[in-house]
Amino acid sequence: MLSSRSRHATRQQWLYDEIRNAILDGRLAARARLPATRDLAQQYGLARGTVTAAYLQLVAEGYVSSTVGRGTFVSTHIPDAMLQAGVKSATSEFSPGRRTGQLSARGRDLARTIFAMLPPAKIGCAFRAAQPDLAAFPLELWTRIAARRSRISHRSMLADGDPRGYRPLRDAIAAHLARARGISCSADHVQIVGSVQQALDLCARLLLDAGDQVWVENPGYPAAGQVLKAAGARLVSVSVDGDGIDVAEGVTAAPRARLAYVTPSRQAPLGVLLSLARRMQLLEWAATSKAWIFEDDYDGEYRFTGRPHAALKSLDGHGCVIYAGTFSKVMFPGLRLAYVVVPDQLLDAFAAAMSLTARHAPIMTQAVLADFIAEGHFGRHIRRMRTHYGERAESLQTAAREYWSGVLELSTIDAGLDVAARFLGAGDDTEIARRAAEHEIETRALSSWAAGRRVSARCKGLILGFATVHPAAIRAGARSLARIFEEFPPSGA
Amino acid sequence: MLSSRSRHATRQQWLYDEIRNAILDGRLAARARLPATRDLAQQYGLARGTVTAAYLQLVAEGYVSSTVGRGTFVSTHIPDAMLQAGVKSATSEFSPGRRTGQLSARGRDLARTIFAMLPPAKIGCAFRAAQPDLAAFPLELWTRIAARRSRISHRSMLADGDPRGYRPLRDAIAAHLARARGISCSADHVQIVGSVQQALDLCARLLLDAGDQVWVENPGYPAAGQVLKAAGARLVSVSVDGDGIDVAEGVTAAPRARLAYVTPSRQAPLGVLLSLARRMQLLEWAATSKAWIFEDDYDGEYRFTGRPHAALKSLDGHGCVIYAGTFSKVMFPGLRLAYVVVPDQLLDAFAAAMSLTARHAPIMTQAVLADFIAEGHFGRHIRRMRTHYGERAESLQTAAREYWSGVLELSTIDAGLDVAARFLGAGDDTEIARRAAEHEIETRALSSWAAGRRVSARCKGLILGFATVHPAAIRAGARSLARIFEEFPPSGA
Repeated sequence: MLSSRSRHATRQQWLYDEIRNAILDGRLAARARLPATRDLAQQYGLARGTVTAAYLQLVAEGYVSSTVGRGTFVSTHIPDAMLQAGVKSATSEFSPGRRTGQLSARGRDLARTIFAMLPPAKIGCAFRAAQPDLAAFPLELWTRIAARRSRISHRSMLADGDPRGYRPLRDAIAAHLARARGISCSADHVQIVGSVQQALDLCARLLLDAGDQVWVENPGYPAAGQVLKAAGARLVSVSVDGDGIDVAEGVTAAPRARLAYVTPSRQAPLGVLLSLARRMQLLEWAATSKAWIFEDDYDGEYRFTGRPHAALKSLDGHGCVIYAGTFSKVMFPGLRLAYVVVPDQLLDAFAAAMSLTARHAPIMTQAVLADFIAEGHFGRHIRRMRTHYGERAESLQTAAREYWSGVLELSTIDAGLDVAARFLGAGDDTEIARRAAEHEIETRALSSWAAGRRVSARCKGLILGFATVHPAAIRAGARSLARIFEEFPPSGA
Repeated sequence: MLSSRSRHATRQQWLYDEIRNAILDGRLAARARLPATRDLAQQYGLARGTVTAAYLQLVAEGYVSSTVGRGTFVSTHIPDAMLQAGVKSATSEFSPGRRTGQLSARGRDLARTIFAMLPPAKIGCAFRAAQPDLAAFPLELWTRIAARRSRISHRSMLADGDPRGYRPLRDAIAAHLARARGISCSADHVQIVGSVQQALDLCARLLLDAGDQVWVENPGYPAAGQVLKAAGARLVSVSVDGDGIDVAEGVTAAPRARLAYVTPSRQAPLGVLLSLARRMQLLEWAATSKAWIFEDDYDGEYRFTGRPHAALKSLDGHGCVIYAGTFSKVMFPGLRLAYVVVPDQLLDAFAAAMSLTARHAPIMTQAVLADFIAEGHFGRHIRRMRTHYGERAESLQTAAREYWSGVLELSTIDAGLDVAARFLGAGDDTEIARRAAEHEIETRALSSWAAGRRVSARCKGLILGFATVHPAAIRAGARSLARIFEEFPPSGA
């Protein structure tokens, strides 16, 4: 009856599994009598207690029943249908057609994402975008602060936390935002989340019903559009020009949109700053039509010349701007902490939604970050990285002039971790990005961030990251890319 | 024109803020000329470079424009409407009626949660439910492992992670589930999430469209019902009896439900084990009607007598069970890590949904937990806690016999962190829980976990946690509660 004992199970567990499997696959039929514990113990060289314990568990779970003086019998509870199906493995083999397509209609939108498809980051690879330089992060310092925080923490830090986040971290963020982004808010307005995606998801679900319209920038950050769409929003693409999102176009196309998703500090991907006139227009529209604005300030801290510009939120007299920032770019992505400055009237709703769908961010991680900020390391790190990335931006601009002139046009790089470079001709940027990938050069086609069938020439080009790439690798990458342009001219000629 | 300089701003920032505010609140009108940098510097004792830098930032952000030789002028971009609204604070005062009720219809469901209302945990307070004993967690060991992990980690750990979770943690969980819960799965099937709430939210959105039916247990865990409802599900309450959820009742009431949410190992809150016959019935229904089962195994590890029972998932031959477990009870709640065993056909969808809405769990925390499990500390901790909680359960049962006999009936406590105690009379459990709270005794009214207008007598009672309470405090709490029963007899007499 029994197969040989695997090395990993205890004797009792092995016996239990063997008998259970024999029952489930029909080798032991309903009403069959199990051997007496004494006999089975003798037969297999087990302690009698081991056999008794295994039988007791089978009784407890209902596979067998035991009557004193009569013995132990396989129960009659198990329907034939179950036995025929077999209970070999917790996860059945993939059987196409049986359960495929069983996602809900909205589930199919949710199951699409650009993130899952990204290959693991190769550190230093030209020209990965939207990544900070992990090699430049003060890991030893961080580790020291984390170790100290663990030592000095009270056990109450192990308990469930405030769904809004760890209070000292929220204090530190409020103080930082006042200094660096011109936002005057208190810790009460700061909600900690795991990512800007999570913030956007919660906003969409709290503020929109299925089918409500949302303005998104065109070209714009695809993951934002995806999560909004997955939350049931109807996306309205609004063009971006040299002043940022064209508010007048949005007002004409969808005056009653409930939300506008914007990247005012450095438009993703074009890099332009939303002009003051446009800021005012956007705020006026939102105040008048009682719409909300989601300001994604994903890398607004990294401005290489002068101070970072004040956030749109700093102009928000009506409480209609939901401001989101992330530590993924200014610290490191694996940290997975971000924050939202929530208007008064949404505070309770936001905290409730966070607690219901995610509970809260891990507390110790929040506490370490709070220490890191409060002790001034955060500010210093940002200042150091501004210089560091500014130098790399300079290297890229130099290399571009040397290798790409007449082919690719870079906008001035005054902030951020990457830059949008436009083809001077009408090249097929998707094909060029594909060929570059074959030469281990990572770029993103600008057109893949644009909506609509006819992508304007403005949106043909490459998104090039420079922050993680050593100047020598920037030059080498620029040279390789230039060779690809020679083989496959972006002008299409 | 200028107010006194706050201690916290740099001079440049102070000057910038002052001028910007003067423009925004109309003290400096459009087209007004700013003083020459030299004059302003002299007047306020500032370096001329400081004034120039502040002016440059105002130019960059569009508040003023500068023409060489003519001077610097306030721009005409700022509409009067903005000025009238005032831009005093990033978050306006709460003005009732203006934006209240602006949540979407579904947003109102999402903004309801029991979690946000919970007071911070008082360690050791009788009788808080669903909490592990934080005082018994080996914090020093955890800290040591965390510090070592930080030291030996490569910087690639700082990068964005796999949306499915950190691979070694998924390996460790798969191995643990095979040993402890009878689930045979590989790391490929394990998806790391932040909480069971998050897993349930993602499942609901992936598998249900708005209005789809879901079975929930009655009485049952309210937060599960809330998150399902917030995701648009129509809840169908199915009674629980001594064998667990009454599957036949569910099949009659809602045969075409798309999902069943169940707690088979220890029903929340009644504590009963789902019988084998019911398990088979439930699996048969799901296989036949192509529905899904969400198995919430929130504290199945803590069984005081014998081994933990095998999970429902271990019987799942059709791949229709989505199994969720959490580290909140077996480790500590602030850790915020949980996991799902996902059937093959949902693997990609789940990873995509996770990455789109939350990205992934923090990597370092996952790595520390992986080490903790792989080195055997996790297994040892669970075994130690089984004895520890078993003793406390025993204390509660003894105290109950001494103080509550004839009034409250406790079921046998063979697992978990809390127990449902039923009134022998027909008491008002909500009122009693309220009075208990006045005496600093924390309980939950059983009826608050039940659905429907006429809550059966079976569902009148108290949920009592014992795991975090010292035996002396258990006795003292039992005595206090007994005094409340005397003043306010639960029989209603």
